[in-house]
Amino acid sequence: MKNLLVAQSGGPTAAINATLCGVIEEGIANNKIQKVYGAKHGILGILSDELIELNEQFTNLESLQLLCQTPSAALGSCRKKLENWLENEAEYDKILAVFQKYNIGCFIYIGGNDSMDTVYKLSEYCKVKNISDIQIMGAPKTIDNDLCETDHCPGFGSAAKYIATTFSEISCDCDVYAVPAVTIVEVMGRDAGWLTATSGLARINGNTAPDLIYLCEKPFSTERFLKDVKNKLKVKSAVVVAVSEGVSDENGNYIADSLQNSCEDAFGHKILAGAGGYLEEVVRQEIGCKVRSIELNLMQRCASHVASLTDINEAKLLGRATTKYAIEGGSGEMACIKRVSQNPYLTDVEFVAIDKIANKVKNVPLSWINEDGNDITKEMIEYLLPLIQGEVPGTYKEGVPLHFHFANL
Amino acid sequence: MKNLLVAQSGGPTAAINATLCGVIEEGIANNKIQKVYGAKHGILGILSDELIELNEQFTNLESLQLLCQTPSAALGSCRKKLENWLENEAEYDKILAVFQKYNIGCFIYIGGNDSMDTVYKLSEYCKVKNISDIQIMGAPKTIDNDLCETDHCPGFGSAAKYIATTFSEISCDCDVYAVPAVTIVEVMGRDAGWLTATSGLARINGNTAPDLIYLCEKPFSTERFLKDVKNKLKVKSAVVVAVSEGVSDENGNYIADSLQNSCEDAFGHKILAGAGGYLEEVVRQEIGCKVRSIELNLMQRCASHVASLTDINEAKLLGRATTKYAIEGGSGEMACIKRVSQNPYLTDVEFVAIDKIANKVKNVPLSWINEDGNDITKEMIEYLLPLIQGEVPGTYKEGVPLHFHFANL
Repeated sequence: MKNLLVAQSGGPTAAINATLCGVIEEGIANNKIQKVYGAKHGILGILSDELIELNEQFTNLESLQLLCQTPSAALGSCRKKLENWLENEAEYDKILAVFQKYNIGCFIYIGGNDSMDTVYKLSEYCKVKNISDIQIMGAPKTIDNDLCETDHCPGFGSAAKYIATTFSEISCDCDVYAVPAVTIVEVMGRDAGWLTATSGLARINGNTAPDLIYLCEKPFSTERFLKDVKNKLKVKSAVVVAVSEGVSDENGNYIADSLQNSCEDAFGHKILAGAGGYLEEVVRQEIGCKVRSIELNLMQRCASHVASLTDINEAKLLGRATTKYAIEGGSGEMACIKRVSQNPYLTDVEFVAIDKIANKVKNVPLSWINEDGNDITKEMIEYLLPLIQGEVPGTYKEGVPLHFHFANL
Repeated sequence: MKNLLVAQSGGPTAAINATLCGVIEEGIANNKIQKVYGAKHGILGILSDELIELNEQFTNLESLQLLCQTPSAALGSCRKKLENWLENEAEYDKILAVFQKYNIGCFIYIGGNDSMDTVYKLSEYCKVKNISDIQIMGAPKTIDNDLCETDHCPGFGSAAKYIATTFSEISCDCDVYAVPAVTIVEVMGRDAGWLTATSGLARINGNTAPDLIYLCEKPFSTERFLKDVKNKLKVKSAVVVAVSEGVSDENGNYIADSLQNSCEDAFGHKILAGAGGYLEEVVRQEIGCKVRSIELNLMQRCASHVASLTDINEAKLLGRATTKYAIEGGSGEMACIKRVSQNPYLTDVEFVAIDKIANKVKNVPLSWINEDGNDITKEMIEYLLPLIQGEVPGTYKEGVPLHFHFANL
C-alpha cells in the first residue's frame, strides 16, 4: 500500500488550508492509502527531506475544522521554481528518491501558476523516464483568480468577501464628513484585475463606494483619472477609488514607477510607492482636496475571519476530489471548477491537462469593464456574486480567532 | 413635553452608532420626551439648522439592530471646535436658538476629546446665562481610548478586536516562508499607545506575532529598534513589529519626520511616510533582509464585521444611561465606565464633570510597558482582554454586510 504526500506553495490565502484539509481527509479515508505525509515549505521540504506524518495529528474532527479556518499555508510555503530537468536532473532525482524513501504513490501540490509549473515539470519528467507508479496532481489556489481552465480559483472568493466587506465599511467611514475628500484603495493584482473588480460588490446593499474602479487590464491614463475624480466630486463629497496595484500606462509602464523614479529617500534609495500612493500625490497636487491612500496589503489574502463559506467548501472539495483522482491513477492534471448553472449556482469538478494551465494567466475579459474604463459591468457582478456567499462560523477563544498549528513543524 | 437632540462628532468608530442606538431607544421609550431629533454632521448641523426627526425611522427593532452593526457615524460627523463664547457669542446664540425652535430639552453629544470640549463650553455658557431648561451631556467614543476618568472608551474594544484578529492572521501569513523577513505594522495613535498595545492580544492563542511592540509613550530609539529586530531574527525567520504611528525620539520629534524632511516627490512635495514606512526603509538599509510595512489605516476604526460584542453592548448601554440621566436633569457631565470587578468582568456607569475630561489625554501607564520598551506587560493584557470578548452576529445580505442609512440624510 502506498503513501500520500501533500505540499503547499506560493502566496498564502484564506482557503489553501481547506484544500489541505480535503487532501488529508481523503488520504485518511481512502483504503488504498496507508499514510499521509506533508512536506514543509513546498517542494523545498521534499528536496531537504523534511516530511512530517499527518495522520496522527488529525484523530479528531475539531483539528480538521480548525485547519479549515486557519489562514496562510499551515505546512509552510515557498517560491521555488524547478529548473528544466535537462539543466538540473540531480534535483529531479533527489525528489524521486524522497518519494521512494517514503513510498509515496501520490503527490498533491496545492498552489498557483508557478506551482502548476512544478506539477507540469515533475509529471513530464516521470513520463520521459517511464515512471508510472507515482501520480502527480495539482490543486489550485490563488487569490488572484488568474489560473486558466477553471471558472475561478479557491482563495479568490474569500479575498473577494474581505474586499467587498472592507469597501462597504470604508464607504460608511468616508461618507461621514461634509468636506470633499478622495480615498484611493490599492488592491492586489499586478497582472490581473479580478480582485480589484470585487470592490464593486460593496455597492450591492446600498453603500456608494467605490465610485471608480480601475483594473490593470486597460491602459491607465492619469489625465482621465483626474477628470473622473473631478466629475465625481461635483456630485458627492466623499469619492472612493479602487485601483489595481498593477495599473500601467499605454506603454505598459507601472504608473507607480514615475513617482519612484523621481524620489529618493534619506539613504539614496528609491521610495517604493504603490499605485495608490502615486495617485494620492497626483490628487493632492492637481485637485488639492483632502486625500488619503490605503493598501489592503496582506489582510486581503489572510482574513480568514471573514472567509466565504462557498470558497472554503469548494477548496476542501477540490482537495478531496484531486486526491481521489490521483489515487485512481490520474496524473499531470489540475482540478478545475466548472460552473454548471448560474441560478441556482451549481458547480462540478473536472480535470484538465496541466500544460494548458502552467505559466498562463487568465485576465478579466475587456467586455466586463465599462467603456470609460472606470467601472465593472453587470456581467462581472453576476460572475462574482456566488463566490462570496455564506459566512464561516469562526472559532474564537478569549475573543481572538483560534488557528491550527502543526505540532512538529 | 420637551424633545431630545443627539449628534455625533470626531473620528468614526465601529461603536458610535450603538451609542446613538441607545440614545434613540431611551428617547423613544421615556415618557418625558416627545420627539427625538438628530443633527447632521455634529454641531455643524445645529448651526446650519439641519435636524432630522428620528422616531419615525425606528418603528421596528430591525432598524435599531442594523444601526448597531453599522460602522462610522450614521448622522455624519465633524471636526468643529467651538470658540470661547466671549470671542464668538453669536455662534452660541445660534445654537440656543435652534434648541428653542425645536423645543430641545436635552442634547446628547457623542464624541471624543474635542467633542467633550463642545459639551463643556455649551454647558458652561448655559450656566453663565442662567439657562436651566436645557441639559447637555457627553457620551464617550474613541478608538484611541484616551479619554480620562473612564476605565475605557466605547469604540476601543472593537478596534482592539480587529487589531488582535488581524495580527493573529498576519502572524500565520508571515510564518509561511523559510527566509528572514521583517513585517512592520503601523497602528493608529499619535498621542496614546492603547491601540498598538492591543496587538499583543494576538498571541494569546499561540500565534507568535507581534514579536516587538513599540508604544508612543516611551521615547523611540532607531538604534535600539535595530538591535531588537536583529536579536529576534537570530531565533526566528519572520519578525512582526507593531508600532504606534506617533512614536517619537527623545526630543519629541515624530520618527517619520526624518524621512519626510529628506525626501521630496516629483512635485516638490514632502513624501508623507508614516512611522511604519520609515522603519521599513531603516530595516532595508541597515539589515537588508526582506521587509514590508503595513498600515491598518481606516479599517481599524470601521471594521464592524469583527466588532466586540462587549464593546457594542457597553456603547449602547452608555447611550441609554446618558440620555436617562440628562432627562432627569443631569448636565455638563460625561458618562464613564467604572470597572467594578475584573473576574468576573463587571462594570457600572458613573457621571463625571466634563471639565475633568475635555481636552485631556489618558496615556498608557509606563508600568504597563516592559523595561526594554519593546513589549507590554501582563497587567496590560489583563486590562484589555475583557474588552474584546464576544462576537456580534452580523447581518449579511448577498454575502456583504448590511448597513443602516438614514432615509433623509
